Amino acid sequence: MKILIVHAHPETRSLNGSLKDFMVEHLTRSGHDIRVSDLYAMQWKAPLAADDFSHVESGARFDPVLDSLRGFEDGTQHEDITAEQAKLLWADAVIFQFPLWWYSMPAILKGWVERVYAYGFAYGVGEHSDTHWGDRFGQGTLAGKRAMLVVTAGGWAPHYSPRGINGPMDDLLFPIHHGILYYPGFDVLPPFVVYRTGKVDETAYARITGDLGHRLDALWTTAPIPFRAQNAGDYEIPALTLRPEIAPHRSGFAAHVAD
Amino acid sequence: MKILIVHAHPETRSLNGSLKDFMVEHLTRSGHDIRVSDLYAMQWKAPLAADDFSHVESGARFDPVLDSLRGFEDGTQHEDITAEQAKLLWADAVIFQFPLWWYSMPAILKGWVERVYAYGFAYGVGEHSDTHWGDRFGQGTLAGKRAMLVVTAGGWAPHYSPRGINGPMDDLLFPIHHGILYYPGFDVLPPFVVYRTGKVDETAYARITGDLGHRLDALWTTAPIPFRAQNAGDYEIPALTLRPEIAPHRSGFAAHVAD
Repeated sequence: MKILIVHAHPETRSLNGSLKDFMVEHLTRSGHDIRVSDLYAMQWKAPLAADDFSHVESGARFDPVLDSLRGFEDGTQHEDITAEQAKLLWADAVIFQFPLWWYSMPAILKGWVERVYAYGFAYGVGEHSDTHWGDRFGQGTLAGKRAMLVVTAGGWAPHYSPRGINGPMDDLLFPIHHGILYYPGFDVLPPFVVYRTGKVDETAYARITGDLGHRLDALWTTAPIPFRAQNAGDYEIPALTLRPEIAPHRSGFAAHVAD
Repeated sequence: MKILIVHAHPETRSLNGSLKDFMVEHLTRSGHDIRVSDLYAMQWKAPLAADDFSHVESGARFDPVLDSLRGFEDGTQHEDITAEQAKLLWADAVIFQFPLWWYSMPAILKGWVERVYAYGFAYGVGEHSDTHWGDRFGQGTLAGKRAMLVVTAGGWAPHYSPRGINGPMDDLLFPIHHGILYYPGFDVLPPFVVYRTGKVDETAYARITGDLGHRLDALWTTAPIPFRAQNAGDYEIPALTLRPEIAPHRSGFAAHVAD
């Protein structure tokens, strides 16, 4: 299978860099085709801006949504955006690998999402009507592909537990899992999370890569997080709230995961 | 009072640009001292990287945490970082104003956080012991200052309601409110959120700026979100989980807000 790894860490000799190298080696040995977008090494431009689009004339008013659509449709978007979109279309699975910085992905990766996820490519896709609010949340350009996060965190696992001070890891990752990956159609696998990265010695590293190897071997068989598809009947449209009979006593992020 | 506005939108003639201008004018007319960090206009460098620190020699291994500490303590961090830290120390209140892109802040603002929030400045502050896990979540360098988000979203308000498909806005903003603002000590005010930005005509804009003006007038009197202070007894240390008798039947983000 074809696997894209999007990697975001500034130091190749870091734990994150080592995990990226491990994944490339492990997946290659398993016979897969691997491509890596190493965002720091590529000096990826983070901010979405007018200069991403050759059709936006100097001094013209820039609309991040409409100019993104025109840039995607007319081929006037920056070539680094086009190249990443092509990698996403090529891949059967995408692994996003990064340290959790301030409870979310690093800015360089957030900027990859903002620039690569063009209107017409990752959003603004499909019919908008009273029964179908665009091809998103379970449908979309990337439907049929799998995505998984491989994340490192400095804090301890209990700090990210249901009553831990940082908030539960599943909830911290929900905006990425659901809002960035499920949105354009990915099947989203449970994340692989490494805690307390400052204490990873050789023994711990061997355990971590052993566990990660098992997750990679199961990339095609692991059950995705059962997010509810937007257009399959669970939501009122256009309010996009869960119908009263669906998970009637639940609210918040967890309500969008089927039992 | 002294107010810093950190603004992140690429087009000055956008709704966000207009709201920023409105805030500057309104607060200046009220007699406050205003400074603005207009990140796109400043061409703010988003990615935290080795080249932010003059002491990191070419080819040396870069540690985002330890090099950040050394850069902050020895003055070897990039001068744009030092300038923003000084603005934060100067301000009595900080307003962060941005569009919600992919359910979080724009990359350029995330990169502002990652670079300006040095170890020793915004984290890694204070004693670490069995009863006190650093000065954070209610204590820290920015204690006594107020912070507020002014956010725009393209989607409809019900999409962000307790059972809306995007997840509740309060939960989407929790990693920013609690993890980025409360963490280094800010008192965090309830956010000002504008929904359905594509439909803002003159009438709606007048209503929005009217409401926003009231929020600005009440900047010093509005009650902050009552997050639980880490070191005041509600949490077990070092697990940093809520003690069993605190909000005993609650978990998730909301458990960290006192009743």
